[in-house]
Amino acid sequence: MDNVTLGPKTLMYPMPTVLVGANVGGKPNYMAVAWSGIACMAPPMVAVAINHARHTFKGIEENKTFSVNIPSTKQAIETDYCGMVTGTRVDKSKVFENFYGKLKTAPMIKECPVNLECKLFNSLDCGSHELCVGEIVETYASKEVIVGGSTDIKKVDPLIYADGKYYMVGDFLTEAFSAGKAYKNK
Amino acid sequence: MDNVTLGPKTLMYPMPTVLVGANVGGKPNYMAVAWSGIACMAPPMVAVAINHARHTFKGIEENKTFSVNIPSTKQAIETDYCGMVTGTRVDKSKVFENFYGKLKTAPMIKECPVNLECKLFNSLDCGSHELCVGEIVETYASKEVIVGGSTDIKKVDPLIYADGKYYMVGDFLTEAFSAGKAYKNK
Repeated sequence: MDNVTLGPKTLMYPMPTVLVGANVGGKPNYMAVAWSGIACMAPPMVAVAINHARHTFKGIEENKTFSVNIPSTKQAIETDYCGMVTGTRVDKSKVFENFYGKLKTAPMIKECPVNLECKLFNSLDCGSHELCVGEIVETYASKEVIVGGSTDIKKVDPLIYADGKYYMVGDFLTEAFSAGKAYKNK
Repeated sequence: MDNVTLGPKTLMYPMPTVLVGANVGGKPNYMAVAWSGIACMAPPMVAVAINHARHTFKGIEENKTFSVNIPSTKQAIETDYCGMVTGTRVDKSKVFENFYGKLKTAPMIKECPVNLECKLFNSLDCGSHELCVGEIVETYASKEVIVGGSTDIKKVDPLIYADGKYYMVGDFLTEAFSAGKAYKNK
């Protein structure tokens, strides 16, 4: 396969689309983030990369808590809106129905099928962005997305962010930790 | 929407499926990783969460370099295989065709449509896992996945990891930084 070099690029496929929530001056604020991923199993942790200038970042610094909310395609318009306008100029506290959990200061979104409530564990200044790593203290999920005791990606119906566009999750391909047996048996 | 609490969980939708590459004792090794995401824009960085016991982690510590390779659904079997067996017991250096770039010590996979060549910037001990943050020094892409000068997710055809299964990327939904205008105009 012929390769080309593109220079250093922030390329990852697929990226999620999450809404990171934080209270800024006591008021819920949400920003759309594609640069997020799980950071640890024990204890469970999640990482989100946030530009230092962001309004949400002020809230994370203020309370040392934040939330990661996974919207479904039904919230695509509201999610994209939260990625287009800054909390410095626009009040985003009424875009969704807010709720709070154990930490009291990490606002979460009722409409999102999955919410991770996080306590800031540590953060890393990477340059333009701060990589904020939060310990997940509680996970909330809508009853409608639970299948056999666990959440199901097809029920959650999350947004994929790629190339400045949103995509949907497609077909099931194969089982993990199983498909690879075909290679072993070659 | 009625919510249930699930306890602290490593839940993220969608998660990517990447192959993290590192030379261990001079030999390429690859592990399948779903816990990865972009960490910074300037300079471009990527984060990968790796269990401290992993063979690949030894290589990252050894050379302070690694790669993030994005397989397409065509490499599903080989990718899953790399997630099932450990480099401590199995030689995975011949599963793919390897190539090296600027850093000389970060092995990359020819068959994967996208490769990020990384220099370890910093890492964070989170508990069971080390969150390794790498500065992306070069991005390689197969010519076949380039559309109008940039990579295209549908051409890359990456693997989504969710709930112990692999899924494909589905339909285009809407434009980012644009769909949200419908909310604004409400």
